[in-house]
Amino acid sequence: MHITRRPHFIEFGDCDPAGIVYFPRYLEWFDAALQNHFRACGLAKADIVSKYGFVAFPVVDLKVTYSTTSTFHEEVIIETTILEMRRSSFVIRHRLLRGEIVAVESIETRVWAQRRPDDETKFQGVPIPDEVRWRVGFQLAT
Amino acid sequence: MHITRRPHFIEFGDCDPAGIVYFPRYLEWFDAALQNHFRACGLAKADIVSKYGFVAFPVVDLKVTYSTTSTFHEEVIIETTILEMRRSSFVIRHRLLRGEIVAVESIETRVWAQRRPDDETKFQGVPIPDEVRWRVGFQLAT
Amino acid sequence: MHITRRPHFIEFGDCDPAGIVYFPRYLEWFDAALQNHFRACGLAKADIVSKYGFVAFPVVDLKVTYSTTSTFHEEVIIETTILEMRRSSFVIRHRLLRGEIVAVESIETRVWAQRRPDDETKFQGVPIPDEVRWRVGFQLAT
Amino acid sequence: MHITRRPHFIEFGDCDPAGIVYFPRYLEWFDAALQNHFRACGLAKADIVSKYGFVAFPVVDLKVTYSTTSTFHEEVIIETTILEMRRSSFVIRHRLLRGEIVAVESIETRVWAQRRPDDETKFQGVPIPDEVRWRVGFQLAT
Repeated sequence: MHITRRPHFIEFGDCDPAGIVYFPRYLEWFDAALQNHFRACGLAKADIVSKYGFVAFPVVDLKVTYSTTSTFHEEVIIETTILEMRRSSFVIRHRLLRGEIVAVESIETRVWAQRRPDDETKFQGVPIPDEVRWRVGFQLAT
Repeated sequence: MHITRRPHFIEFGDCDPAGIVYFPRYLEWFDAALQNHFRACGLAKADIVSKYGFVAFPVVDLKVTYSTTSTFHEEVIIETTILEMRRSSFVIRHRLLRGEIVAVESIETRVWAQRRPDDETKFQGVPIPDEVRWRVGFQLAT
Repeated sequence: MHITRRPHFIEFGDCDPAGIVYFPRYLEWFDAALQNHFRACGLAKADIVSKYGFVAFPVVDLKVTYSTTSTFHEEVIIETTILEMRRSSFVIRHRLLRGEIVAVESIETRVWAQRRPDDETKFQGVPIPDEVRWRVGFQLAT
Repeated sequence: MHITRRPHFIEFGDCDPAGIVYFPRYLEWFDAALQNHFRACGLAKADIVSKYGFVAFPVVDLKVTYSTTSTFHEEVIIETTILEMRRSSFVIRHRLLRGEIVAVESIETRVWAQRRPDDETKFQGVPIPDEVRWRVGFQLAT
């Protein structure tokens, strides 16, 4: 199981009139952190697309705990790890850390999906390739 | 318990390169829907502020189920209701409806909060005023 | 020359820690207003795509004058008109009106564009179809 | 005249269904780049606020030239410089560079502003402090 951590600087434009981070923004950062995590595991988007076609990872389930607010011009750490790989879905945990404090934690379930042949605007889950399992730190499904 | 429903038109700019709504956007719409719900209950922000001072409703817990994706230029309905009023927090349910289908459902817990006297950048929960309980459709706490 | 006007309600989440609309948000609203303008002229995206293939309108030039700030929970009017139709580009004017006041005005130049056959990630201008010229209120180019 | 340059990675969520950066996003990045520029000049927000009170920099005029589109997972450079310091306003140039190419260039005019004593929701220009002029690389106004 691999863990990535990256520094994240909170911008003025991410905050609301109460002066705190507008809560949907965290999910944008976590989305970017997941893509960064894949790259760190040797799974750049371009490589995924060239091997497996256009793949999207729509979120199907999301649980977020906001323990403390943050404000602009703070530097925090976003920590990302994949907790579980299922047949065609996977579970990701993100944490926004301020020093020792877990300010926000999210548990996302996403589907490894491709466009449906009968309706290009919809996606359907497909089995996660073995190479992907292995690269993000899991054993092959047996 | 009051329920509000309002039509919502999905814009091009809310969608990602997969052509589907970028998942954090739903939470922005639900946030706006809550403020609309308060107004519909006779609790305009200006009235709240003039009576109770600057109040914010930071989200502390969020659960979202995304059952089906949506794309731009669809007209959907956002349905909002407050499920529970606690001492200084409350629980809201939002549903994004496409015809009969619940495309997305969120359960948010928010705190009724004011700025902390000792640190203006932080908020703390305060008891929800009786008038607010009554207006959103709940009995007074006894 | 057709003009469309539509009411727009400013949400809390569109505003920054100074309590005023975060300036890039206006451009998102104007983008949505242009798509609304096309629909009002009988040019729904689905119709455009079915007749002319996937068409995008990338902005190539933008001038915005912000005369006065706005804040959340104000209801404003967004007024949109196409000022000029060139061979493969067009010029749009948006105004955000607060009563009699023009709070923000933008002049956008956009290209009527399709994907480049040699590089799917890039777009190139193509001649604007006569039907489009006519529908948005201009004479046919002669 | 100081110039700052910083790498910027384009995220999936910044792009629209055409697969290109949604044009208002650039302005969010440029806004963050200006705040970074001030910090690089020794003008952290906290220092500004402690010396001069709450200051905002609302944009009053904006000109943007988009020469070429960009897509997600590109790493670009954002280059920022202040071109001109007037009595209570200043002119900033941002460039988004892809290698040798200037993909986007913006010229923003902003006001150095404080809250109006008679209406806390509005801002008014005030003279730019000498220290600020000097720190961003300009001679004192004489």
